[in-house]
Amino acid sequence: MTLAPVNLVLLEPAELGRPMPVADRRTRHLLDVLRRAPGDTFDAGVIDGPRGKGTLIAVTADAITFSFQPLVPPAAPEPITLIVGLPRPQTARDILRDATTLGASALHFVRTEKGDANYASSTLWSSGEWRRHAIAGAEQAFSTLLPSVTHGHALAAAVAALPASTIRVALDNYEGAAPLSATTLPLGAHVTIAAGGERGWSAAERDFLRAQGFALAHLGPRVLRTETACLAALAIARARLGLM
Amino acid sequence: MTLAPVNLVLLEPAELGRPMPVADRRTRHLLDVLRRAPGDTFDAGVIDGPRGKGTLIAVTADAITFSFQPLVPPAAPEPITLIVGLPRPQTARDILRDATTLGASALHFVRTEKGDANYASSTLWSSGEWRRHAIAGAEQAFSTLLPSVTHGHALAAAVAALPASTIRVALDNYEGAAPLSATTLPLGAHVTIAAGGERGWSAAERDFLRAQGFALAHLGPRVLRTETACLAALAIARARLGLM
Repeated sequence: MTLAPVNLVLLEPAELGRPMPVADRRTRHLLDVLRRAPGDTFDAGVIDGPRGKGTLIAVTADAITFSFQPLVPPAAPEPITLIVGLPRPQTARDILRDATTLGASALHFVRTEKGDANYASSTLWSSGEWRRHAIAGAEQAFSTLLPSVTHGHALAAAVAALPASTIRVALDNYEGAAPLSATTLPLGAHVTIAAGGERGWSAAERDFLRAQGFALAHLGPRVLRTETACLAALAIARARLGLM
Repeated sequence: MTLAPVNLVLLEPAELGRPMPVADRRTRHLLDVLRRAPGDTFDAGVIDGPRGKGTLIAVTADAITFSFQPLVPPAAPEPITLIVGLPRPQTARDILRDATTLGASALHFVRTEKGDANYASSTLWSSGEWRRHAIAGAEQAFSTLLPSVTHGHALAAAVAALPASTIRVALDNYEGAAPLSATTLPLGAHVTIAAGGERGWSAAERDFLRAQGFALAHLGPRVLRTETACLAALAIARARLGLM
């Protein structure tokens, strides 16, 4: 499993003021890739907290010690939620990383009728591994914010928890009447994009989504991988919101 | 190395009417994933030629035999060219696959001043492996068209070969004055997107690009991986052209 190169070293709040083990991937990045020595600074941030400068203090055989100076308060979460039918674990890893990089502030991996129920029991979810991929995506983006992530809930539960005012679009290459680019997304709006996963939506799910105010939109005739469809939709939505 | 699941079995023109070895990945896909038996049909196409139906005729210990019936002539290439600074080979693989899926009709992996010259000598390029990734991207998209691909040319050479009327945009998060979404892309236009690769453009390259009619545009404050930036830009351009 490859994690993206770190641009920003993200720290849990509880890690501040404590030594970081030499085997930690962030230690390896600081020493082996960035080649930092005691006294050198590096870009760092606290998860869901401020961004700032770390200073490497000492390197021992077991751990490094460092200080952290907060400089920039965290930005507001961006107004984009992604709902996606639970995909195979490797696809979920890519979406966790790349949708976080692209600024989705909530990611809901939901059960769908056509989805493979086994994907919900992957160790990706049960071990907590999923969070590492979101962290890698935030580090890449130079952001301290992690999305709120849920997995294994029913589609209806994720929809019930959406902000009331969000603009709702479901990707559907079968019944989508217009391309996503034709959806009206005013600057400043909050948008929710729902993607059905590898096998798409069932007829009942389409009815449910329509009843819940989702417009069905397509991404053109080319068949995209689930992760490509999610990224393309996020990029188009961000562009329409003036963010990209 | 993982190749995307095949939606469409793509054949070289010379492969028509010949047995396909049992070890070929398309044979494995037909037999192991699609579970086709003699007499069954499958979606197939000829690279840069028609799409149609294949029929499995026989399966022996060494090879399968099949027939092919062309049904749909190839579509016109889509009006999008991508120029990207030669990235590390794994990034190039992803871009070859995903930019092809997203319909780029030309991909130029160019030398840039800040790029790593070693990337040009990867076996990805010298062995011809690169073409397999473009094929996987076309199969995913259910398209028979491969992009024209060049690698290792100078940026100036790739720019000199562009269609005269193409709208030229260079991604530049340092000097891009406006987001890509603010670029005027009329329906029906041909667009060229240039991405500088991992370390971006040099000052001389920016001057050159501006002199060649490129508008510098950014993709927002979040730092994207090269492959994510390429995909996001292609998606935004396709949306602006009404294709997505």
